[in-house]
Amino acid sequence: MNAEKIPDIIITRLPVYLRALQRMADSGLKTTSSQELGEHVGISAAQIRKDISQFGEFGKQGTGYSIAYLLDKLREILKVNRIWDVIIVGAGDMGHALARYQGFADRGFNVVMIFDNDKSKIGQKIADFTIEDMDNLPEKVKSSGIKIAMLTIPASVAQETADKLVQAGIKAILNYAPISLNVPKGVKVQHIDPATHLQRMTYYL
Amino acid sequence: MNAEKIPDIIITRLPVYLRALQRMADSGLKTTSSQELGEHVGISAAQIRKDISQFGEFGKQGTGYSIAYLLDKLREILKVNRIWDVIIVGAGDMGHALARYQGFADRGFNVVMIFDNDKSKIGQKIADFTIEDMDNLPEKVKSSGIKIAMLTIPASVAQETADKLVQAGIKAILNYAPISLNVPKGVKVQHIDPATHLQRMTYYL
Repeated sequence: MNAEKIPDIIITRLPVYLRALQRMADSGLKTTSSQELGEHVGISAAQIRKDISQFGEFGKQGTGYSIAYLLDKLREILKVNRIWDVIIVGAGDMGHALARYQGFADRGFNVVMIFDNDKSKIGQKIADFTIEDMDNLPEKVKSSGIKIAMLTIPASVAQETADKLVQAGIKAILNYAPISLNVPKGVKVQHIDPATHLQRMTYYL
Repeated sequence: MNAEKIPDIIITRLPVYLRALQRMADSGLKTTSSQELGEHVGISAAQIRKDISQFGEFGKQGTGYSIAYLLDKLREILKVNRIWDVIIVGAGDMGHALARYQGFADRGFNVVMIFDNDKSKIGQKIADFTIEDMDNLPEKVKSSGIKIAMLTIPASVAQETADKLVQAGIKAILNYAPISLNVPKGVKVQHIDPATHLQRMTYYL
């Protein structure tokens, strides 16, 4: 298995399989088939078999996949068989929602700090976090070795803030600002923009 | 131009072009090239030319694209040259953040109602909205002809709620619950799940 050779499009589907398999495991299921998994995620059984076979032989003809085994393997491939520390940059409504979100812990992520540059917010609490001064971000990120940030700030300051994050050692940015970010090769960006997602559906209405 | 023949993957990129072009227009630019647009969105110039040419001849060799013209055309293709009413289902942290989000109005969407089934929340205000009783949702959606919903409720009740939305006439669901939804053909779902997006990046770390 050579990580460089797996197409990005396959990697984007693996977390979706992982999420569905986790729900199956939670509901007590032990085995599944590409057919059944496909029905849960809206992807064809053939595509699922092809995607998973990129990483080795995980299923047995006729008996399907062991859910626990496939979960282990997918977590290993996606490197979420460990916990990644994550920071939130921007303590607005979305920053608040993410700071209180309960869905990270069992999927490989742990929010550890939240930053803002608004002096009136610094020192305030969100859930268990105290909002920290953005000026201290570079030092705190560097000293802790954190690699992942969620960016929930206005578009007008998103690029300059992303530049600072990258300089501090951040390698993966989940960007909630409605602007495409330019980052150096080796830094990954995923974009969450509800209006963009809505526009992907209106075409079909 | 036959809508059925345009691959989904192209449709997913058009809102990204639209967003970047809007920002160029806001900053006073009048024309752009596939090269320049490509640098903004991280997609190759060749891919952009190919995507846009699916819908007709919008650019001129040598002079590039008129931004205003391309904006008009993209809005027309994506059907956001009008305003779509949207409801929010679930008045938790994410529902609050979406209700207060300022980025919908100039991109084709207008949040008109927010629902919850928690009796203690019904009647409370979020921004300009009064939280309404989920029991009244089917009637309100039917009578107003609303087609789009943003679903911000726990995974455990997401499928049954989606079923109700579809029955009431909703044709597009932006799903924030961490579960894949089964919907009939003709109903579109887009999924926003921050943990899934983060897992798409850890693979590369």
